Amino acid sequence: MALNLGRMPEVLRLIDLALAEDLGRGDVTTESVIEKETGATAAVVAREPLVVSGVDVARAVFARVDRHVRIQLRQPNGTQVAPGAVILDIDGPASAVLGAERTALNFLQRLSVLATLSRLFADALTGTGGRVVDTRKTTPGWRVLEKAAVRDGGCFNHRSDLGSGILIKDNHVVACGGVKVAVERARARAPHPLRIEVEVDSLAQLHEAIAARADLVLCDNMAVDEVREAVGLAHAAGIKVEVSGGMNLQRAPLYAQAGADYISVGALTHSARAVDIALDFL
Amino acid sequence: MALNLGRMPEVLRLIDLALAEDLGRGDVTTESVIEKETGATAAVVAREPLVVSGVDVARAVFARVDRHVRIQLRQPNGTQVAPGAVILDIDGPASAVLGAERTALNFLQRLSVLATLSRLFADALTGTGGRVVDTRKTTPGWRVLEKAAVRDGGCFNHRSDLGSGILIKDNHVVACGGVKVAVERARARAPHPLRIEVEVDSLAQLHEAIAARADLVLCDNMAVDEVREAVGLAHAAGIKVEVSGGMNLQRAPLYAQAGADYISVGALTHSARAVDIALDFL
Amino acid sequence: MALNLGRMPEVLRLIDLALAEDLGRGDVTTESVIEKETGATAAVVAREPLVVSGVDVARAVFARVDRHVRIQLRQPNGTQVAPGAVILDIDGPASAVLGAERTALNFLQRLSVLATLSRLFADALTGTGGRVVDTRKTTPGWRVLEKAAVRDGGCFNHRSDLGSGILIKDNHVVACGGVKVAVERARARAPHPLRIEVEVDSLAQLHEAIAARADLVLCDNMAVDEVREAVGLAHAAGIKVEVSGGMNLQRAPLYAQAGADYISVGALTHSARAVDIALDFL
Amino acid sequence: MALNLGRMPEVLRLIDLALAEDLGRGDVTTESVIEKETGATAAVVAREPLVVSGVDVARAVFARVDRHVRIQLRQPNGTQVAPGAVILDIDGPASAVLGAERTALNFLQRLSVLATLSRLFADALTGTGGRVVDTRKTTPGWRVLEKAAVRDGGCFNHRSDLGSGILIKDNHVVACGGVKVAVERARARAPHPLRIEVEVDSLAQLHEAIAARADLVLCDNMAVDEVREAVGLAHAAGIKVEVSGGMNLQRAPLYAQAGADYISVGALTHSARAVDIALDFL
Amino acid sequence: MALNLGRMPEVLRLIDLALAEDLGRGDVTTESVIEKETGATAAVVAREPLVVSGVDVARAVFARVDRHVRIQLRQPNGTQVAPGAVILDIDGPASAVLGAERTALNFLQRLSVLATLSRLFADALTGTGGRVVDTRKTTPGWRVLEKAAVRDGGCFNHRSDLGSGILIKDNHVVACGGVKVAVERARARAPHPLRIEVEVDSLAQLHEAIAARADLVLCDNMAVDEVREAVGLAHAAGIKVEVSGGMNLQRAPLYAQAGADYISVGALTHSARAVDIALDFL
Amino acid sequence: MALNLGRMPEVLRLIDLALAEDLGRGDVTTESVIEKETGATAAVVAREPLVVSGVDVARAVFARVDRHVRIQLRQPNGTQVAPGAVILDIDGPASAVLGAERTALNFLQRLSVLATLSRLFADALTGTGGRVVDTRKTTPGWRVLEKAAVRDGGCFNHRSDLGSGILIKDNHVVACGGVKVAVERARARAPHPLRIEVEVDSLAQLHEAIAARADLVLCDNMAVDEVREAVGLAHAAGIKVEVSGGMNLQRAPLYAQAGADYISVGALTHSARAVDIALDFL
Repeated sequence: MALNLGRMPEVLRLIDLALAEDLGRGDVTTESVIEKETGATAAVVAREPLVVSGVDVARAVFARVDRHVRIQLRQPNGTQVAPGAVILDIDGPASAVLGAERTALNFLQRLSVLATLSRLFADALTGTGGRVVDTRKTTPGWRVLEKAAVRDGGCFNHRSDLGSGILIKDNHVVACGGVKVAVERARARAPHPLRIEVEVDSLAQLHEAIAARADLVLCDNMAVDEVREAVGLAHAAGIKVEVSGGMNLQRAPLYAQAGADYISVGALTHSARAVDIALDFL
Repeated sequence: MALNLGRMPEVLRLIDLALAEDLGRGDVTTESVIEKETGATAAVVAREPLVVSGVDVARAVFARVDRHVRIQLRQPNGTQVAPGAVILDIDGPASAVLGAERTALNFLQRLSVLATLSRLFADALTGTGGRVVDTRKTTPGWRVLEKAAVRDGGCFNHRSDLGSGILIKDNHVVACGGVKVAVERARARAPHPLRIEVEVDSLAQLHEAIAARADLVLCDNMAVDEVREAVGLAHAAGIKVEVSGGMNLQRAPLYAQAGADYISVGALTHSARAVDIALDFL
Repeated sequence: MALNLGRMPEVLRLIDLALAEDLGRGDVTTESVIEKETGATAAVVAREPLVVSGVDVARAVFARVDRHVRIQLRQPNGTQVAPGAVILDIDGPASAVLGAERTALNFLQRLSVLATLSRLFADALTGTGGRVVDTRKTTPGWRVLEKAAVRDGGCFNHRSDLGSGILIKDNHVVACGGVKVAVERARARAPHPLRIEVEVDSLAQLHEAIAARADLVLCDNMAVDEVREAVGLAHAAGIKVEVSGGMNLQRAPLYAQAGADYISVGALTHSARAVDIALDFL
Repeated sequence: MALNLGRMPEVLRLIDLALAEDLGRGDVTTESVIEKETGATAAVVAREPLVVSGVDVARAVFARVDRHVRIQLRQPNGTQVAPGAVILDIDGPASAVLGAERTALNFLQRLSVLATLSRLFADALTGTGGRVVDTRKTTPGWRVLEKAAVRDGGCFNHRSDLGSGILIKDNHVVACGGVKVAVERARARAPHPLRIEVEVDSLAQLHEAIAARADLVLCDNMAVDEVREAVGLAHAAGIKVEVSGGMNLQRAPLYAQAGADYISVGALTHSARAVDIALDFL
Repeated sequence: MALNLGRMPEVLRLIDLALAEDLGRGDVTTESVIEKETGATAAVVAREPLVVSGVDVARAVFARVDRHVRIQLRQPNGTQVAPGAVILDIDGPASAVLGAERTALNFLQRLSVLATLSRLFADALTGTGGRVVDTRKTTPGWRVLEKAAVRDGGCFNHRSDLGSGILIKDNHVVACGGVKVAVERARARAPHPLRIEVEVDSLAQLHEAIAARADLVLCDNMAVDEVREAVGLAHAAGIKVEVSGGMNLQRAPLYAQAGADYISVGALTHSARAVDIALDFL
Repeated sequence: MALNLGRMPEVLRLIDLALAEDLGRGDVTTESVIEKETGATAAVVAREPLVVSGVDVARAVFARVDRHVRIQLRQPNGTQVAPGAVILDIDGPASAVLGAERTALNFLQRLSVLATLSRLFADALTGTGGRVVDTRKTTPGWRVLEKAAVRDGGCFNHRSDLGSGILIKDNHVVACGGVKVAVERARARAPHPLRIEVEVDSLAQLHEAIAARADLVLCDNMAVDEVREAVGLAHAAGIKVEVSGGMNLQRAPLYAQAGADYISVGALTHSARAVDIALDFL
């Protein structure tokens, strides 16, 4: 059951920034060469296979420019489509359609490529017990949209921000003088709806984390075999295991097969090229 | 002579969106496990070769979280650095440094990769008379930053928005009933500080554009040989030639050698992976 | 083909500022003396001859206060109307109509006077080859609206902002050590969709500009005869000529008859009194 | 004792709108032709006699662009200065000075002309017992600034908005069925810190207003002699008299001499041309 | 005749802050456990006797989350309702109803308790000539809403802000060197639509205020008998009397019976617990 | 280790709303009666025993009005102070101090009362193993501030928003057809850093929750004895128990003694009166 992202205040602020930066001085070409009152019927079309994400944002972009633009969603977020598939049907004043086109496509292309990449990762782990999860390495200003795109592609979200998850990293451990103290402090002070996750980079640290009764461990930059051993130890203590560090479509399945519960993939949100989506006038 | 991008109102709005989305509920981990008044000395370090971009934005992020964070720029925007190079020195309350870290790095990584890629394109055209130029296929909300990163990497900007350049595209031509009418209307109505550029996809259209005395032509999706011919015709009429369509590091130099004045590369701003930059506590 | 200015994010921000400053504490008079649920039918009427501008903004003001206000545009932007002409018909809750009235009229009066003045200038140049163009001497916060009003009155826009036109002024020339260096640097670095315009205040500087192959020259504060000579020189080199400096309805035609292509009139946007427009209850 | 207007949140929002609209895409001329790290020393100078207003706003504009711009106020708001007088001394990076120049001057010119015009009105009433007061016919978004400029010129403010004054106008009277009912309702319901003012356009209505014990009457569009009579009647009842309708520098003193306490002048804020102020590089 | 508070720009900004802080990262529970496209029919129900306030704000909250939520107002602001009364009927996507629920209720509960408390105060003064008035001790960000709630409960508003009322307090008197100077300065400089109120804490100061012809006196922290004497003196001079200082439901009527015209009750807006209102799914 | 709340973008937006609503039209009293350039030295003083919260916000309010106001924090957030204790020392222009006073105090009073009440709850549970936790029943716009105040008083935060905790409520259970399905769906889809909490209102539902392996149960509106039994069952299954429903200072300890791990107290943030804090001129 998804909220309409195109209505969220923070998303509307981003849309306003985007429209202001592209259309805020008007569209001198269209104003010069297109006669008044010209209408346009157009379709947003996939030019390559992709998983759709961002259609509610794209719709909100057109609606923001002119309420008289009528938009029909043809493919909901999360759908895998073939080249040529029509994602949105659009009908309205040509000035509004041309003025919103680039901004709407820029949103749709960037979010769909995340969903498409997430789909590849999700499929790569089929049959393992592991989940691919995202990170906070998102485009500033785009967090909620990119996390939705990850879900649209069948992967899962890690914490949404610094306030919605306890992740004790190496710098925290150093500042506390050890894993044990850090975990105990977190248990004493942190909101109870949050699990306590601690990053470990060795089996020695893992033992500390287990002894301190962390809820989750994040094995960072460990080899597959080391992770397999870590999983054995952690699961025996009722602790889930997440892995991170240079994960890609080849390495992620190996870690999942080694028993890791969560595979953290920064590349989901920070390494994607845009997919090809275009607006065609009909 | 560059403005401080970290002071521009629209950039500050994007920074506020970014901080609100990551730090707006506080940092439950740091608040739980780090003792009050702890300070931190840290360095932002390149983990791979790159061209720096976004240091003023990164600095503004830290300053926005806490004015007591002291930041020293060690590498200005546009510098090519080797792995291990320190880009920023940081000193301040640990809570502020940890709270701003991810957002600052997310800006820096995404902008530096654009500058780095632009550098590759700029270098690839050395010795030709062509310029690589960007497009409006930027990340919504990031236009002014990404255009600066393109310049930091030695490439050039096309129009910044729909209000700062006349580019008559195929849809405009169709609506006008031909290149000639479109160019004439633009000349009659558009602001005179702007050149009139028209997209053509054949030599037949190019002849029309020349006859209509366009200032610039954009040859879209033409083969190298066809562009060479187009350049000959256009230059003879005192018209500059831009090319676009699937440009990459291999194809761009070929078009430049064929005489194109401007090579439009959408991939400059929409296909880059993030470069690896980290914040290390000292 | 005009965008609806009342939908642009920056215009909505200005409307919000305006409503907050006038209506943000409510309307104590209307709340005290008018009974609940009273409706109002009203007309916005020209009290003197004028050219309409800002109707979409006025409509957006009423709509922002209450969606139940129904508004009928009777005179589109750019229309010349006689005293007594109804510009907008309005129907809705009296509290909303009275609450929005002053703000809507303040927008409409200020924009219409600009369009009206622009019409006078445009008519004054009829039969010459010259265009009257505006400047950046606009009311802060109102740029896009005032530039549209100038067009509504039949004049033309110069660059919309510092990012959409190259205009090398005397300070730039001094800093570069001469017109030639300045123009060369601009050609080497500036976005190619922009013409390169350089300000000159003597025929000596004009010769420099011609030698440097500027695209446009701005003759500032030159006498009509001097401009006539400048036009001869510049046109022979294929360069257009703009003039500026104390232009008014008497002087502008003289310069146009002397051959100037563009007459820059700061007074278009910074010297107008408001025209008389009122809201009458029916 | 004046607040620093350049710090007020609503003024900062207007400044941000203004900078975004002029400088939001950067300054392509300065970036192209001025070498990095060039500094500038400049003075903002009056080119004609004027009363200064808006210096704190102008200073805030420069500071918003770059904190390293140093500004010295040489003439506080409210000062009458001669042509050539230096209002502000400025020193900082040339890019920031040039980038902020036009926006700062646009604020300063528009506010100073209001103060200058107000000074003329205030002087015209010297020796009478009347005060010139402003109206709500201000530039949308500029209310607080323009009201300050009116005070800087020696005139007085009427209510600042619909929430800070009771002014029962003809439409209210009609809706209530008479002056008496309207005044009684206002007395029964309105905030007690506010006087109750009622607009009358005849002596008959004035008698009603006196009978209803209004605190103030606004005589709209009455002849001087009629106002003289109205003043006699109203003052006898302990009621102050305001007049409005087409007031200018000739008519205002006549009404003041006829005994009017307050002369309402819409033209104070809606009919002024900009005064000439320039930024000179030193 | 009330404006729709849910449309005021400042209220919309507060609603956006509120939705961003609760729903800005989505609703992980509902997204996880409720199937897509589930609809909800619900009612907002009073759980205790109360006076309704804030229904337009609550409606705006739901509408902001999703335009497809249909809302029926069953009890307008200002209505006294019994436990079980349905205030709003709601119908729409379950995700939107659940996502907006808490924010809408938080507004409604806090505003209704103010109206309910105001009703108690208003009723307590029935039969006296006194009015209960509010103060500026409101929740930052909520001023206009809380002042409306006070009116919904039958009490009255004092000035809405520092710009809409003259209240000379002890600190001002000290700085001026006495009540007389302070009142004279206010009369000489303040906007004439505003009465001049001065705070006095003794009969000696009251005499000064009367001599200086203040319009209103605020007797702060005086005993009932002292106020009775003050009222006699002030009324004889045609001056209204306001009282303040620790007013509650017991003390306020005593002061009203002693003749005070206005009883200032800070507790109206700063001491209320929330009333119990719930959203029930049907 | 606490972030400076007065620097967070969302808090700054709330401060701007608050200053705009109180000071946005200026301060007509102070401007009228206080001479220019008057300075003020003042102290913010507790008038009753309280726990301080909000000092960084109060400081930010003064700084926002005028950077020249110097503020010294004398009592950090979380301190218990006696009547007469100086919380802040203030020194600066009188206009700024008087203009910011009410807004700063309004923040400080409302946040300190929450901290003070939280302290009472925290102390009431001393010696039990239970924690008092807050709810989402906060003042819209104030979430992050009120949650910090709860911590300042020694209590704990529940989830900060709908995105940072899984709490399956009765409506969710109904929509899923049972506790078991709801918990399973949450486990399958929700972010793994979040524990899964489910609301139960009977021991029968508790058994379901245990069988479904929820991480936490929220026993809503259960009697103390019933909770004691629930704790026995839940703890045996390794599940923590939270209780809610009409908790106050009397009832909360009884539930803690019955073994509840978390006592949810809505009244922490929605039922407090303001504490008495004043600004005294020295």
